[in-house]
Amino acid sequence: MHLGVFVLGTGNHIAGWRYPGAADSFLSLKGIQTIAATAERGKFDLLFLGDGLAAKMGDHPSFLVRFEPITMLAALAASTTHLGLGATASTTYAEPYNIARLFASLDHLSGGRSAWNAVTSSGAGAGANFGRVHPGHDARYEVAEEFVDVVRGLWDCWDDGAVIADRQTGQYVDASKVKALDHVGRFFQVKGPMTTARCPQGRPVIIQAGSSEPGLALAARTAEIVFSVVQDLSEAKLAYRALKSRLPTYGRSATDVALLPGVMPVIGRTDAEAREKLNTLQGFLGPTSALIMLSGRLGMDVSGFDPDDLVPDLPLPDSSHGFARAMLSKARREAMTWRDLSNLTGAARGHWVICGTPERIADILQEWFEADAADGFNILPPYFPQSFDEFVDLVVPILQERGLYRRDYTGTTLRDHLGLPRPASVMFGDAA
Amino acid sequence: MHLGVFVLGTGNHIAGWRYPGAADSFLSLKGIQTIAATAERGKFDLLFLGDGLAAKMGDHPSFLVRFEPITMLAALAASTTHLGLGATASTTYAEPYNIARLFASLDHLSGGRSAWNAVTSSGAGAGANFGRVHPGHDARYEVAEEFVDVVRGLWDCWDDGAVIADRQTGQYVDASKVKALDHVGRFFQVKGPMTTARCPQGRPVIIQAGSSEPGLALAARTAEIVFSVVQDLSEAKLAYRALKSRLPTYGRSATDVALLPGVMPVIGRTDAEAREKLNTLQGFLGPTSALIMLSGRLGMDVSGFDPDDLVPDLPLPDSSHGFARAMLSKARREAMTWRDLSNLTGAARGHWVICGTPERIADILQEWFEADAADGFNILPPYFPQSFDEFVDLVVPILQERGLYRRDYTGTTLRDHLGLPRPASVMFGDAA
Repeated sequence: MHLGVFVLGTGNHIAGWRYPGAADSFLSLKGIQTIAATAERGKFDLLFLGDGLAAKMGDHPSFLVRFEPITMLAALAASTTHLGLGATASTTYAEPYNIARLFASLDHLSGGRSAWNAVTSSGAGAGANFGRVHPGHDARYEVAEEFVDVVRGLWDCWDDGAVIADRQTGQYVDASKVKALDHVGRFFQVKGPMTTARCPQGRPVIIQAGSSEPGLALAARTAEIVFSVVQDLSEAKLAYRALKSRLPTYGRSATDVALLPGVMPVIGRTDAEAREKLNTLQGFLGPTSALIMLSGRLGMDVSGFDPDDLVPDLPLPDSSHGFARAMLSKARREAMTWRDLSNLTGAARGHWVICGTPERIADILQEWFEADAADGFNILPPYFPQSFDEFVDLVVPILQERGLYRRDYTGTTLRDHLGLPRPASVMFGDAA
Repeated sequence: MHLGVFVLGTGNHIAGWRYPGAADSFLSLKGIQTIAATAERGKFDLLFLGDGLAAKMGDHPSFLVRFEPITMLAALAASTTHLGLGATASTTYAEPYNIARLFASLDHLSGGRSAWNAVTSSGAGAGANFGRVHPGHDARYEVAEEFVDVVRGLWDCWDDGAVIADRQTGQYVDASKVKALDHVGRFFQVKGPMTTARCPQGRPVIIQAGSSEPGLALAARTAEIVFSVVQDLSEAKLAYRALKSRLPTYGRSATDVALLPGVMPVIGRTDAEAREKLNTLQGFLGPTSALIMLSGRLGMDVSGFDPDDLVPDLPLPDSSHGFARAMLSKARREAMTWRDLSNLTGAARGHWVICGTPERIADILQEWFEADAADGFNILPPYFPQSFDEFVDLVVPILQERGLYRRDYTGTTLRDHLGLPRPASVMFGDAA
């Protein structure tokens, strides 16, 4: 089983910062260093950061007031030794050459622990910050496909062993082990090579979180980790199969990609105590912030609906399919009202919430893992640092005792943790 | 007197890595942490990194194989407490929204120590990595003027005190203290606001290194630090006056901008030992790498010229004026051959080299400082770590004894070190 922790400094619960003793700012270097240290204590595969390119008043505090993700991970590279460091970066509002450099640099700084969540920016607000009309869903994925190829190509421009640094002869680089990319595509023309040597991991790990058809295709072709949004075991099993069955098309096997659904664990000494904790958190929800987030998830303004009305069938939005599909499906199954759905969104932004004793949490994770619904989980602690401490100190040991989870790291790179080989550059053939 | 250190991990001398015991890789987190710790021991104002967006085989090893600068500084933010952290980022091949976020994030991570060297990319090779024709010199500066304004505007979107985080009421942000930028200009349309609170420094420090007319204008209007290329005291005094005399046009005074010429100190126990050390370094120069760099500096291929011919009068290149002007002027004054000029370029990439005992080095720096030719210096150690240790342990104490340089930090932010006030946001009037 693989574990990641999704870090929003004020907690993944939209009002988690109001919990007694919880951190109330994402802008604390010490705060994120503490979270990262806890993740390493729990032998986590990676720490992960989302991102957004537009500020919406009333949004989740940690979406609104935050570090830029890649710089934050670079700072954490200096205070950690094993933890994978993953961040979201947009294929819609950045240049492949810049993105390739940033994640390669993070890989060098961390000794082989960087991962790039290649997203197509879903928020329509981003366009206005880049002087552009936000492209539609499928158009964004067309760009993303080429963008990811260019970035991977740039990472492959330097072969291993290109840096010689021979003091005697004065030769620093073996130029035969460095090639230009010479990419000329539909959206990008990028010559290369990069301004750095091949990464410790060969290539940084690629993460994908798309669940639409184009998103799944991109994930199946290029990703080593896939994050997903789930609310239901049977749907999770279908999604698991949908991803894994696509892999052979691209010459890949089921073990080449780890599917990690997001889950918010709310832990108590008894199930009742855990339920009480969740109730406390839900009681902190203001009337608007969850609605703003739900509107974003569904791609429509839902603030005008009667909170007591049932959620109707709605089309999937242009922004992002994953959250909307899982949430609308759950609303339909459970006959939820707008108020119910808004509360669910406020809790974990549309992710799955589980609640109970450490044993119950471990039972559920084990059940999903063994039912081929997940290769592990992206853990979303509702607040920091206490609720993450509880997961690491109370749930992880149970998973370890059951033989489901590592007791210690057996390698140093994120690819090591994922059981993936270090890829050779495709530019240099078998010699690489 | 203000001091910065220009870090190229294998040394600023193009062949510094061949010096016995010197570091031979820029890709070492431990290596850069050691340099940063030495800079803090020497109470330096800042550590500075250049950048380039194209890899040229045979180039300076630390231009070719390196960390991306902003991620590297983010990593150093975690291991330092006072040192200013400055990096180059292009206004030609990036988006203002992304650049504003990166340096704001670095400022938050470092507690107010970030600085952005806003350059127009000089290397023609960069265009090919971004699918664009590299714009001409003056066109790049037109974009840069607007780019810097947008970035500063984004930094001003959040007023101090906008983050409330009131656990009782659940109010996280005071929305009246956050404004959109709504910039609509010739090159950029950027709505804002940023996805983070106002920086510890208000705004990160802005560095400029332009010496052309448009470069000087941008520097005089927006920069708090200016790096310059000098080879001669009388020319340095003229350049100093040229910058300072422009400041009142923009409502600024001489103390608002620190002009720091670049200088490579080669230090020995005797002048003869220092000269011997420089000769050793020059003996490490290969036949091609200095010529590649000289060609870049002059914007023309100089490899075909007879090394024994005198350097003729040449026009300033489209790439960058500063280096070419200083080097061609020196070549004319001193009747240098192509070989001489190539050797000079190999030493410090066109920067000024001084050589001698610690006392002699201190004398020269003091003379320039007191002659109104410099507010301090950007120190370019020829190799690391030893030659930087020598400067900090042998030259800095002399400057301190003479009352020219601080014995300890008196503040924590880079603006503190520079004696600059923390700027209020222009968007929120006197209330800010």
